[in-house]
Amino acid sequence: MKNIDLSACGIRPGGDCTEELNRILAQNREDCEFVFAPGDYRITPHIQRDLALSNTDVIPTRQLGILLEGMKNVRLTGSSARLLCEGRMQPFTLLGCENMTLTGFTIDWEKPMVAEGIVTAFTDTSIDLYIDPAAFPHRVEDGTLWFDIGGGEWSRFTGWTIQFDAVTRTVRRMSGDRFGFGALLSECGGHVYRFAANRPDTAVGNIVVLRHNEREHAGIFAEDCRNIAFEHIDIHSCGGLGCLIQFCDTVSFRAVSFLPNREAGRFVSGGRDDGMHVTCCSGTVTVDGCSFLGLMDDPINVHGCCVTGAEWLDERTLCCRFMHEQARGFRRWAEAGDDIVFIDRRPMTQIAHAVAASYTLGEDGTFLLSFTEAPDEEIRRRDPSSLALDNLTHTAAFVCENNRFGSCRARGVLVSTPKPVCIRNNYIESSGSAILVAGDANGWFESGECHDVEIAGNVFTDSCLSSMYQFCEGVISVCPVVPEPDREHPFHKNIRIHDNVFDSPDVPVLYAFSCDGLTFSDNRIYQSPRAEKWHPGKAMIRLESCRNAMIGPNTWTGDFGGMQRISGD
Amino acid sequence: MKNIDLSACGIRPGGDCTEELNRILAQNREDCEFVFAPGDYRITPHIQRDLALSNTDVIPTRQLGILLEGMKNVRLTGSSARLLCEGRMQPFTLLGCENMTLTGFTIDWEKPMVAEGIVTAFTDTSIDLYIDPAAFPHRVEDGTLWFDIGGGEWSRFTGWTIQFDAVTRTVRRMSGDRFGFGALLSECGGHVYRFAANRPDTAVGNIVVLRHNEREHAGIFAEDCRNIAFEHIDIHSCGGLGCLIQFCDTVSFRAVSFLPNREAGRFVSGGRDDGMHVTCCSGTVTVDGCSFLGLMDDPINVHGCCVTGAEWLDERTLCCRFMHEQARGFRRWAEAGDDIVFIDRRPMTQIAHAVAASYTLGEDGTFLLSFTEAPDEEIRRRDPSSLALDNLTHTAAFVCENNRFGSCRARGVLVSTPKPVCIRNNYIESSGSAILVAGDANGWFESGECHDVEIAGNVFTDSCLSSMYQFCEGVISVCPVVPEPDREHPFHKNIRIHDNVFDSPDVPVLYAFSCDGLTFSDNRIYQSPRAEKWHPGKAMIRLESCRNAMIGPNTWTGDFGGMQRISGD
Repeated sequence: MKNIDLSACGIRPGGDCTEELNRILAQNREDCEFVFAPGDYRITPHIQRDLALSNTDVIPTRQLGILLEGMKNVRLTGSSARLLCEGRMQPFTLLGCENMTLTGFTIDWEKPMVAEGIVTAFTDTSIDLYIDPAAFPHRVEDGTLWFDIGGGEWSRFTGWTIQFDAVTRTVRRMSGDRFGFGALLSECGGHVYRFAANRPDTAVGNIVVLRHNEREHAGIFAEDCRNIAFEHIDIHSCGGLGCLIQFCDTVSFRAVSFLPNREAGRFVSGGRDDGMHVTCCSGTVTVDGCSFLGLMDDPINVHGCCVTGAEWLDERTLCCRFMHEQARGFRRWAEAGDDIVFIDRRPMTQIAHAVAASYTLGEDGTFLLSFTEAPDEEIRRRDPSSLALDNLTHTAAFVCENNRFGSCRARGVLVSTPKPVCIRNNYIESSGSAILVAGDANGWFESGECHDVEIAGNVFTDSCLSSMYQFCEGVISVCPVVPEPDREHPFHKNIRIHDNVFDSPDVPVLYAFSCDGLTFSDNRIYQSPRAEKWHPGKAMIRLESCRNAMIGPNTWTGDFGGMQRISGD
Repeated sequence: MKNIDLSACGIRPGGDCTEELNRILAQNREDCEFVFAPGDYRITPHIQRDLALSNTDVIPTRQLGILLEGMKNVRLTGSSARLLCEGRMQPFTLLGCENMTLTGFTIDWEKPMVAEGIVTAFTDTSIDLYIDPAAFPHRVEDGTLWFDIGGGEWSRFTGWTIQFDAVTRTVRRMSGDRFGFGALLSECGGHVYRFAANRPDTAVGNIVVLRHNEREHAGIFAEDCRNIAFEHIDIHSCGGLGCLIQFCDTVSFRAVSFLPNREAGRFVSGGRDDGMHVTCCSGTVTVDGCSFLGLMDDPINVHGCCVTGAEWLDERTLCCRFMHEQARGFRRWAEAGDDIVFIDRRPMTQIAHAVAASYTLGEDGTFLLSFTEAPDEEIRRRDPSSLALDNLTHTAAFVCENNRFGSCRARGVLVSTPKPVCIRNNYIESSGSAILVAGDANGWFESGECHDVEIAGNVFTDSCLSSMYQFCEGVISVCPVVPEPDREHPFHKNIRIHDNVFDSPDVPVLYAFSCDGLTFSDNRIYQSPRAEKWHPGKAMIRLESCRNAMIGPNTWTGDFGGMQRISGD
């Protein structure tokens, strides 16, 4: 393997060498290791591309920093290089690469794409926030706050806030999205701003995260890649999702962290959104030894993308429709030979398989999908929009181990894949549910059935499920969207939860809906006396529309108030 | 077994039937079950006894509530009865009993023996505390606070405080005994008091625990008993140690909790001191499924009592001296046939054994101990005060499992016993070290060598070792007092720490001093980003004067700043 000393090529810390770096990268696409010298590098967007990013706003052109395209057997050794970005851009983009390793980088923004204020005072109707003008440069205009994101651009405060307790650095209990924070009322001077509030539950010194900016770029984006590894990467800031990996085969993250840049005085990390989205991938996705804290949305979500039928053009050709506005226009939703499944959207049952013959992207969020053989007439006679389609070839096994999931907005780990999922030996202090076994072809359209999920050896602290978010019915929430569950044919299958530790102030530790084959055994559940029960759930374990569930033996320490241990129907 | 319905005997909720209850108990000493009706009972001290309580102030007479003496095969079924006590007294005393079970009681004081204030304001030099006059009746006299403890008695604030964070209900990080709280400066009105402070690290709403009262009585005291079981007992308040068990053989605690009475608006539990002291017991001590939070000292301490030699009266008779002022005058420190060991106090090595022939308690903290055979002349020629003596017959095996150790002042579990110790499957958020393997014949004189300690399957949260107290060198601290360690003959032996989970903001997870045979393997250590490193320890694992240590494999998640993984000499 060829070793390329980038500093010898003029890529040295201190300035902006992005353009030159991209030129060198484009000239050496195979069998080489690029070695950075330690230090700070300014990365700026010199490349524009039209890319369809999953779970991200659709915009015509993405602004790219470092582009790795069509590379094979290449290693980028960062040597702890710090990549400093500015404004709306995507630091790393990998397209059509194979056998890649990126290791030893820090990604940060000097002007972060999310702002923070510190509570200096509050009343029943107002909250005063100090916003550090050096850390979060800002101004008031049109009656609201605008944040300087560099390059002369200003980004408007969206009004969306999350509160972290200063003492615990976790999302404030029973707060979440229901903080009751309102419009800017007045400037108090000294960079203190008074906002309307509705009987806010807060404390002087607490941190209020102020979201601004749009969700347009990821920190690291990869598409159409195979065997890609990310190691020892610290992502302090980015502009949207942290790592977005879509239509890739076999990906690993080891010692990748989303932690706040405490030296810069920040409590939030990442951008204004999720940590890792793994969309429509195959092979095995591994997340090992990673750490998350202070993200504005779920740390990890491994999912597919369901679409619906729109119209049969002939007996082998269906016009389909991408259903979520942030997931459309994918160049590779299907390829010839892919295993496509038809799903009845009301009971969410899989009713037929077909093999893709061709895929043609259309306009306005549609595409044409032809099959090698005509599906049964029974399928074709149905209302096409009552059918969801999922591409089972684009589903990944998932190994998630030895990670620390600190408090972030929303949930911890989301999975919706039929391939084996193993979530083990993690330490989790999520704000909402720690693990959400999702699945949906009616709202988010993030597919799909799970057939083999093992959740073992994890510790769930009493921060888990301390605030409410969508689908958060238990510390572990098996909560697919199934409008009309079929009791004889539950949606998820074979979920085994064992040898975990839960510390819980009487919030449900398990909710399972529409699951066939569920075990919850050899877990230890301690009652945490550090908070009161608050969750509406009335049982520690609640099963709904499940079959073949086996609960126990488990060890319970504490009396769990008046809560039922188990309820089900 | 005879069933005695106490309500049929006139012992009914509502009033004070202590005297009558003691009469009925004294009349039925064998083979019976006493059943309480649910409800509140006033327990008052009608019996006075001269009892030598370990780790407790020496006073001439103890005030006893319920006395169980010389009983055999007896069960007290509380049916959730709440025993309400007042002032200086000991609710339960068991003397010379065998095969006893106490189950289903709550022990509380309406006027607790420790007070709390809430921080309403603070400056660099003062703290204002609101003290609820209903929950903690008090007055100002002689320039300080006095608390009403009932019966016309008032108890003086000692000046000793601990601070709990309101949000976390844990002892404030890096606070502990170093809070910097001072004398009463002034009354601000409305039961708000201003105290001197030295740049206090605090927050409005935090709870400051104000210790008053002396350590004169335990919640439950047992001596000279065999096979005693405590089950489903909630100790909200007491006057000193929670449970003091001394010179007993085989004791179990199951679902015994020391939790604050939140309904009464309290954040602290127990009295002003430790949870459970198990002193000079034998057989097996079991603590299973118990919960602790808000104690003013260590939840559990299983130990012996070392004494020193004073003078040889003849070649078989040594006058010995109890060394700690709170551990003296024990009627049963030794009996004929007991295995007595001589310890050289400087290297703390065991140098000879002898069999006790007789034991005679003397005056002024001394006793005469004669042996069946004269110890070697080499022993007798030494300065007697350079020798410590321990009674190995009075050492207990210890099983500590499925417990939740919430934040209390000081450490979590202390052990100094040569019998097998198993601390497994506990959830621990101590303020200081979670587990202290102690041993000492120079300061506290709580003996002794450990020969077989297994610490497995526990979770140590990032609250552990967040403040400094004596001997807190690691989350697990093997820290005997050995003035001149002998490297060839370390003090402790055979300590196995495996399959635990540590969440740590760079504080040492293990410190071991003078240990032969130590394994630390298959543990998972996560770096907590919720706090900064603060502990002076510079390595995650530090070994000093140890032999045969085996560290690893362990799993580390996070980079642990610049801390060494392992250091040793």
